Amino acid sequence: MKIHRLKESDLINKIKKEFSQKDLDIEVNIGDDSAVINFSGKRIFLTKDILSEDIHFTLDFNPPYYLGRKCVAVNLSDLAAMGAKPRFALLGLCLSPEIDRKWVDEFLNGFRDICKEFKVNLIGGDISSSKKIFISVTLIGEGDKGIERNGAKPEDKIFVSGSLGNASYGLSLLKKGIRLGEHKKYDFFIKSFLDPKPKVELGKKLREKGAVSAMIDISDGLSTDLFNLCEASNVGAVIYKDKLPVSENLLLEKTEEKYNYILHGGEDYELLFTVSPQKEKEVINLSERITYIGYITEKERGIKIIDSKGKESTLKKEGYEHLI
Amino acid sequence: MKIHRLKESDLINKIKKEFSQKDLDIEVNIGDDSAVINFSGKRIFLTKDILSEDIHFTLDFNPPYYLGRKCVAVNLSDLAAMGAKPRFALLGLCLSPEIDRKWVDEFLNGFRDICKEFKVNLIGGDISSSKKIFISVTLIGEGDKGIERNGAKPEDKIFVSGSLGNASYGLSLLKKGIRLGEHKKYDFFIKSFLDPKPKVELGKKLREKGAVSAMIDISDGLSTDLFNLCEASNVGAVIYKDKLPVSENLLLEKTEEKYNYILHGGEDYELLFTVSPQKEKEVINLSERITYIGYITEKERGIKIIDSKGKESTLKKEGYEHLI
Repeated sequence: MKIHRLKESDLINKIKKEFSQKDLDIEVNIGDDSAVINFSGKRIFLTKDILSEDIHFTLDFNPPYYLGRKCVAVNLSDLAAMGAKPRFALLGLCLSPEIDRKWVDEFLNGFRDICKEFKVNLIGGDISSSKKIFISVTLIGEGDKGIERNGAKPEDKIFVSGSLGNASYGLSLLKKGIRLGEHKKYDFFIKSFLDPKPKVELGKKLREKGAVSAMIDISDGLSTDLFNLCEASNVGAVIYKDKLPVSENLLLEKTEEKYNYILHGGEDYELLFTVSPQKEKEVINLSERITYIGYITEKERGIKIIDSKGKESTLKKEGYEHLI
Repeated sequence: MKIHRLKESDLINKIKKEFSQKDLDIEVNIGDDSAVINFSGKRIFLTKDILSEDIHFTLDFNPPYYLGRKCVAVNLSDLAAMGAKPRFALLGLCLSPEIDRKWVDEFLNGFRDICKEFKVNLIGGDISSSKKIFISVTLIGEGDKGIERNGAKPEDKIFVSGSLGNASYGLSLLKKGIRLGEHKKYDFFIKSFLDPKPKVELGKKLREKGAVSAMIDISDGLSTDLFNLCEASNVGAVIYKDKLPVSENLLLEKTEEKYNYILHGGEDYELLFTVSPQKEKEVINLSERITYIGYITEKERGIKIIDSKGKESTLKKEGYEHLI
């Protein structure tokens, strides 16, 4: 939905312009992965992501247990991108009258399990009815000064965690009618879409190292989120197509659109971050998989991709397509 | 929707049971008007209310400017009921593709205006698409120890702010096809429904007086919210029908269901609170209108209402009906 995404950035810009007020307690305002309030020296990180039926999930594609996990995971990923420690959750849940109790129980089981895994306590929220299911989770985190997306400088190296494209390839399989548990070789991809693993521990380590100049999570696809990071930092970038991390599973797939998933597919919830060359040694020995994929340039150069033959072209920012 | 409301309390009880974990930083947990976190001595109040199209509002009934105000007002009312000072907001907004830009602009104008009036800063959120409009606002407040709903004791006096029933009578007029601006005498009621005035200042004063033993906001109707306060405090109550505060406008209306609106109509967003007889003098000289309506009893006596002839009967807890 390109129109939708254009509208979204348009609206966010209007909101930024009209709502921005001076408040000494606000450390990070509208537009980053999470807001940060500095309350008498104590930093509170706040993030809110919404999942709506038939846009972000469908009753057919998403088993309720995994949906309960995912609505927390996408918010955990926002806190991971700031290097914050998750603490508390608020759950807003609108259920349609057609939903049965079993669905709700499984949804809550998923919600409970991921909260336990990440030591997040549910402290409140709101439950109501609606024609379609709607889930709005607010997460509250704590930590030292967060890592924003606006600190990248020319010559900084660009890294990405994990591997890219698995989730959106999984979504394409769901759209073709394939479901979890039907084909062993497809489960990896479908699970990547249904049950993403937010990189909270990696985010925290990167913050502690103090080596990262800018960070964002890849929720809308590498091209869009790299564009967002570069726009916030007022820089350009060059990435190498051959260096992009791809899972062995995806390498084995014979899909022609492979690089479409890797470059533009959303929902990976990996971390994209930049490190100055002097500080690179601080991050390369982490236990998590991270991959060098390119470097930051002056803004004027734009955002480029170099293919395996050394040919440079402009990286198109293709909006991640939602379900409709 | 009685079934819906039963399901809601049922679900909240399940969540309370399965999710409650020990955390020394949580001062008020699931089930009160807002959660309270005590972060190294700094208290953070968190509340989240959702409004969904065709349940809490319709495009026909609710002009966008007032809807933008109301989605903040209902959350401000939750903070008022804790005696907290509102500070920050997160906005989750799902818009259907049919909504035009003018609607969105007016909605945001209303949102911005009420935020300014209450000195609330929008610091983040999420915008997405959906088949129906869905609004989820999280408010963050600060303050001293909040006033919970569980502290009422037998013999405490029961007070209510403002007057009751105007908003639900306004909703009944909207359902009959009457719209704002069409009849001067109806505008008061319709405005009460569309643009409620949260009692933030009164809540703050009551907290400062230190005289209130329990407090709740009246969002679901007096009978339901009195029941909620009594259940949380493990007490009963007696209220006098003749003492219930009614606006002059509603007194003049010739509706037969007047006491249905006053006793059970929701969306008043007034404060219902209890004060021990010894501390009553602390609250009676406030500049805001507050009315003594009855007293707290032992739980065994149940929740009773005494009519103008002195006849006592059980107060029925009639669920507030949503739009559908």
